[in-house]
This record gives sequence, structure tokens and C-alpha cells, in this order.
Amino acid sequence: MPKVIDHDQRRRDILQVTWSLITEGGLEVATMREIARRAGFANGALKHYFPGKDDIILGTYQMALDFMNDHVLSTVGDRRGIAALETMCLTVLPLDAEGASASRVLLSFWERAVSSPPLHDVYLEHLATWRGSLARYLQEGREDGDIRTDRPDAELIDEIMVTAIGATVMSLVAPSLYSPELQRQHVTALLRQLGQSGA
Amino acid sequence: MPKVIDHDQRRRDILQVTWSLITEGGLEVATMREIARRAGFANGALKHYFPGKDDIILGTYQMALDFMNDHVLSTVGDRRGIAALETMCLTVLPLDAEGASASRVLLSFWERAVSSPPLHDVYLEHLATWRGSLARYLQEGREDGDIRTDRPDAELIDEIMVTAIGATVMSLVAPSLYSPELQRQHVTALLRQLGQSGA
Repeated sequence: MPKVIDHDQRRRDILQVTWSLITEGGLEVATMREIARRAGFANGALKHYFPGKDDIILGTYQMALDFMNDHVLSTVGDRRGIAALETMCLTVLPLDAEGASASRVLLSFWERAVSSPPLHDVYLEHLATWRGSLARYLQEGREDGDIRTDRPDAELIDEIMVTAIGATVMSLVAPSLYSPELQRQHVTALLRQLGQSGA
Repeated sequence: MPKVIDHDQRRRDILQVTWSLITEGGLEVATMREIARRAGFANGALKHYFPGKDDIILGTYQMALDFMNDHVLSTVGDRRGIAALETMCLTVLPLDAEGASASRVLLSFWERAVSSPPLHDVYLEHLATWRGSLARYLQEGREDGDIRTDRPDAELIDEIMVTAIGATVMSLVAPSLYSPELQRQHVTALLRQLGQSGA
């Protein structure tokens, strides 16, 4: 009887190995040769699972974006308004090892997405989901009387996204300067401003 | 008489070619072979000018950081306090083609700096300069009565840096969402908050 190969599992293994390589040394060390070696494949065998390196990279990024989405959704849970917003902001920051690992993959993703239309499209789709959630939480926060700033929601959404992305890069590139403690203070300050009318 | 070779000029040419390759397709396309080809060198001739690829990459990043520093210093000029702060924030954002090009190189730099101690050290040094300028402008702005927030300067410095880095990434990765107009509004909102006591 031939051995049954779980192809989906193999694909997940390959992506997981690529993820680990990126977190260890960036995209540069995630060569096809090294991915194959770590995943226990012969050179050239990866092509039975993915057409090419771009597809492996895209799959790995999709894994990081999915991790972020699932992580936020499960942590926010039933929260609404300002509480949902605070939870979301804290969840997307790389405050723990798992978050830092996904953030490292995202940083490589951003570097590639600038020069790759398919990756760019994937990211715009991800941002659209994120913007939708932020818009809903802001709306709820205004209904609840917790958000009183007169600045338009569209501007606040951009500001929150820029802050989250900047905080991710800073905490990866300069962790000695930008501690988890400072990241939390930053989120607190941001939310305090939302609660101030005229601010 | 032997032809006189301007080695410094050759080195600058090589870095300039690397810079262009990064802005066109990211670090991935800036291979030694492609750098040599574009700069008009035989394969292997680059090593007469740089010991290895890491040195070429480091030189290119240094060029981008120097560009940012010079650009900010010359644009800020004699301004002080809140005016210097506003000018600095607007100058580090990729609002024009030259700024966008330097920002693209910086994004690749950040991706590498996470996994490369020498690049990381270069960046920390750059951030220290930047933090020093921000601290001075904030101090002046308080003396002038333009900055009245009760939030500590150390927190504001982090916030401004995170915003600038996040805005750089967003404008490169999602330019359709984060226009120069929105970037300017973001800076205006940030400065308005600094001027509000209790904000």
C-alpha cells in the first residue's frame, strides 16, 4: 500500500519553515535551498507543493496576516467601542513573543509589497478589513459617549493604522528604545485623546 | 601615463546604482551581479572597492540616512520650537519623489537592521541624533508657549518618531490610501495636540 501523503500538511510545514527563517534572519536567508533543507525535502522537491518561491513567500505572509486577524478577533471578542479599540491596538502591537514573530514576518512583507503588485493587493485587502473594524469601534465609541473628539473618523483610522505600523517597526528595529511599557503608554495616550472633545 | 581612477567617485557610483536597484525592486534585485552590470564593472571587480555585499548595503543605507539628516537640517534652517518641529515632520515624510526614493531605501534598511547588528547600531546612532533635535525643538516650543501639553517630552519624542516611521511605511505600501494630503493633515493634528494644555 503506498504511503499516504498529506499534501496540505506538507504545504503548511513549508510555510512554517519559511516563517522561522524570516524571523531568524529576514527574507535574505529564506532561500529555496534552505527552505527545502529545513523542511526535509530534496532540492527541487518544493515545486511539487508550490509553483515557485513567490508562492511560498505569499503563503507565509498570508499566514502572518491571518494570525493577526484571528488574534485580534478572538481577543476583542464581544467588546465594543473604546474597549474594543484599546484591545485591538494592544493586540496588533508586538508585545509578546508570538506577536513579535508575526511582526517580523510583516516587516519583510512590507519591504516586498512595495515592489510586488500581488503582495500589494493582498495587503490592501487586509487593510480594508482592519479599517472596517476600526470604523465600527469608533462609531460605537461615539454612541457610548466615550469618543468625543471632533476629528473625523477617517482621519482617526489613518492615525491609528500609522501608529500601529510605526510602533511595529520601532519595536523591532529599536527594541532598546521602544519597550512594551512605552508601547502601552502610547496606546493609552491615543485613546485619551479620542475621549477629549475638541482634542 | 596610467589612467587616473577616482576611487571615491567609483564607490559613490556603486552606492548610487545600489540605491536605484533598491527603489526599483527592493533589496532582492540588488544582487552583486546586477550592481556590477549597472555600474559598468566586470563580475568580481566590485571587491576592489568594497570588501563584500554587506559593505555596499551599509554604504547605501548610510547614504539614505545622511540624505535624511541633511535634508532636515537644511530645511529647518534657523527655525526653532514648534515651527522647527513642523518642518522636521514634513521633511521626513515621503512627500516628494526624492523623499519617497530615500524612504524606499530606509524600508529595506529596517527589514535588514532587525537581523544585522552592524546595521542596527548605525540606526540607533541615527535615532539618537533625531531624538536630540526633537528634544531641543520641544524644549524651545515650551519656552515660546506654543507647546502646552502636560505629557512628558520623552513620550512625545517616541510618538513623533513612531508616527514618522509608520507614515513612511504606509505611504510606500498603501499610497492609494495614504496620500500626501492625509500625511500633512496628520502632522497638523499632531502639532495641534501639542499646543493644547491637558491634551
